[in-house]
Amino acid sequence: MKAHVLIMPREGVLDPQGKAIAHALNGLGFTQVEGARQGKLIELELSGSDPEAARREVVEMCEKLLANQVIETYRIHLEG
Amino acid sequence: MKAHVLIMPREGVLDPQGKAIAHALNGLGFTQVEGARQGKLIELELSGSDPEAARREVVEMCEKLLANQVIETYRIHLEG
Repeated sequence: MKAHVLIMPREGVLDPQGKAIAHALNGLGFTQVEGARQGKLIELELSGSDPEAARREVVEMCEKLLANQVIETYRIHLEG
Repeated sequence: MKAHVLIMPREGVLDPQGKAIAHALNGLGFTQVEGARQGKLIELELSGSDPEAARREVVEMCEKLLANQVIETYRIHLEG
């Protein structure tokens, strides 16, 4: 089973990478870009086939290791 | 309109961050984790409301700046 964990900086937390991306895109002529934020995408390959159990475990992984909840939020998508 | 760009290292490209994540999760007792890969998630805030045009423009942004297609693949999701 695959789990995708999407980790983004919280609203209000400084995101210099996102700012640099928006600035560079504007500079290339993409003036429709009003803002950008950069986060992380982590794909996990999991053994086991129970999606409920997998989701619970991935939540625990996020809280223990993957996301810093003071400054980041996370979302989880399970696949197959 | 929001666009989410998901950028992952291609299969076969070394991904030391992903390896470190899998190793750390295994070490924390999450032995069901068989592998991990880390990529980037970029959220773009776009003016304009035509989703077809937005998708075309975001593809162009990926090819010109956001993704290095030699070593990375990208996917685009549009929202609202």
